[in-house]
Amino acid sequence: MSTADTNELQSDSARVSPDALRDFVSAVYQTTGASAEDAWVAADAMVQADLWGHQSHGVLRLGWYYARLRSGAMRSHTSVSFPVDAGAVAVMDGGDSIGPVVAKHAALDAIRRAKAHGIGAVSVRNSNHFGTCMYFTRMAALEGCIMLVTTNGGPNMAPWGGLKKMIGTNPWSVAVPAGRHAPLIMDVANSGVARGKIFLAQMKHEEIPPNWAVDASGRPTTDPVEALKGFILPMAGHKGYAIGVIVDVLSGVLSGSGFMDEVHGPYDPVNRSRAGHLLIALDVKAFQPLDEFNARMERYIATLKAVPLADGVDEVFYPGEKEARAHERQIEEGILLPADTLAGLDKVAGEAGVAPVARR
Amino acid sequence: MSTADTNELQSDSARVSPDALRDFVSAVYQTTGASAEDAWVAADAMVQADLWGHQSHGVLRLGWYYARLRSGAMRSHTSVSFPVDAGAVAVMDGGDSIGPVVAKHAALDAIRRAKAHGIGAVSVRNSNHFGTCMYFTRMAALEGCIMLVTTNGGPNMAPWGGLKKMIGTNPWSVAVPAGRHAPLIMDVANSGVARGKIFLAQMKHEEIPPNWAVDASGRPTTDPVEALKGFILPMAGHKGYAIGVIVDVLSGVLSGSGFMDEVHGPYDPVNRSRAGHLLIALDVKAFQPLDEFNARMERYIATLKAVPLADGVDEVFYPGEKEARAHERQIEEGILLPADTLAGLDKVAGEAGVAPVARR
Repeated sequence: MSTADTNELQSDSARVSPDALRDFVSAVYQTTGASAEDAWVAADAMVQADLWGHQSHGVLRLGWYYARLRSGAMRSHTSVSFPVDAGAVAVMDGGDSIGPVVAKHAALDAIRRAKAHGIGAVSVRNSNHFGTCMYFTRMAALEGCIMLVTTNGGPNMAPWGGLKKMIGTNPWSVAVPAGRHAPLIMDVANSGVARGKIFLAQMKHEEIPPNWAVDASGRPTTDPVEALKGFILPMAGHKGYAIGVIVDVLSGVLSGSGFMDEVHGPYDPVNRSRAGHLLIALDVKAFQPLDEFNARMERYIATLKAVPLADGVDEVFYPGEKEARAHERQIEEGILLPADTLAGLDKVAGEAGVAPVARR
Repeated sequence: MSTADTNELQSDSARVSPDALRDFVSAVYQTTGASAEDAWVAADAMVQADLWGHQSHGVLRLGWYYARLRSGAMRSHTSVSFPVDAGAVAVMDGGDSIGPVVAKHAALDAIRRAKAHGIGAVSVRNSNHFGTCMYFTRMAALEGCIMLVTTNGGPNMAPWGGLKKMIGTNPWSVAVPAGRHAPLIMDVANSGVARGKIFLAQMKHEEIPPNWAVDASGRPTTDPVEALKGFILPMAGHKGYAIGVIVDVLSGVLSGSGFMDEVHGPYDPVNRSRAGHLLIALDVKAFQPLDEFNARMERYIATLKAVPLADGVDEVFYPGEKEARAHERQIEEGILLPADTLAGLDKVAGEAGVAPVARR
């Protein structure tokens, strides 16, 4: 659950239509040989992150993915296989294909297994960075399932007490159907902050809080440039370290994919990612009637939102609610992108030979 | 993963033999009508927490559990049933029985389902506080399974921005087989600190760090007495809030048990707990040969422990390693209990009419 950062106006920022942005990203992917369908999934996952206010996982990243597609580190033609296909569980090999395309295949497969067995797990190897976890867990919640998704990523945190990058931010998400409300969704990275937010601060020329990262010598820093050379700190100290390790084991070790510094992040233009994921879906109706569950969730949310408020607080939000609100607002208003992000998109447009995305 | 706190000597503390302590707790439980077998499980779960250095979840709590057994809020005769029993998934009703006894039934059942289907889930309603999650996840790791356990608890945190206790510390754990090493185990509460640690500070007449809790008016406090009247803060701010909500939903809503302030903690001597749990087991060999997995885990741990060390750090520990070391040490040395804890045990001994636990 990240704060929406779309209200931070900059002089050269501009609004773009979500549809135009999706079409633009899709067109760029298709120039690398991706099918129209796969390009749409990749574009939708990225634009959706922007719509939710998670710009650090949005089109800001297009240039990195594009470089990986052009080098062949990420393969534009999707090739997934199932080394294990055994009822409730499967191991899927993503064949180094486009991350969101692989993860969507896996999510749909986990949901199918859950509908048949009450629970389903898909362990994914040889995938790529897929953007925000909640893009996939939310799909399951809309199908009446609870879903857990974990993924590992390129190393950018040191083991607790150590001075070498070994653990990724390793995000994970759980989404739950919530009746008439948008799904209740938890989506966190185990770093104090997603690395993309430090890139965003760098692009906006802003300082970062002192508890986000240390520099290469282990000293606290508020300079995003120094932080990117050093170590991101885990959330909640040693607890975040422990969770980060477990997510790496579930995603990378169980699937037979890469783990620790064998995984390469989206910023790396040339190496295979070797990222792994774990997706577990539970079909709510195998446990209780879905309408009863939804009624309980509506009561849950109503109770959360009815508590007395702390000074200066206007409203208690349930997890995922801010993202749903940002989505609704930006569908109407368009997505406000910073100047540096727009310049990055224009650069990719030039390289790919497609028309730049139109400003509103 | 909590810090071992057994090295904090007090003037009137004393060492006790783990076996003597287990026999003592077991005898107390049997005076309430518990069977010898169930009493042993309850005692072992409590003493094991002390052996791991988690005194906040150890025999410190015996008096509370004993009061609940005597009032009938927790039933000494175990009665579990399966409202849903459907292959890979089940819903278990714990019948308000002794928490660790219910949870052990559920863990063994989830492991059995995982061995048959690759993955198994048991959703538990109407249970009780069961102590440390890792007591149960570790059981699965020793059987070649990965296990996730979640539980909700009595409310002691406010929703983010709110001023009413609604969310428990809601701990969760994942354990993983680790070859020749003790299992790799993550076990965290979503509060900045387990409530039991504030009780321990109160018993030791120590101040608490300022980021653990706020008082009843929402002001930061270092006084454990004021903290216990106020609100424990979630770990990692809003992230801990989101995780706490998700654990409550997985444990309480999915099972049809209590959630939010419907759950009563072990400190409450009269009300049914209505705590719920979720246990998910994955049979490693359904995904890859167990010996390959174990070899990967040994390589994982070796790599973690080989990184350069920060100043003042002697060793990098993998999650669960400190607990395994504390166990080995205290099996030899005995468990060092603070004077207040020993006095509490003697009080229970008097009430139950059993011999006080012998000091070494």
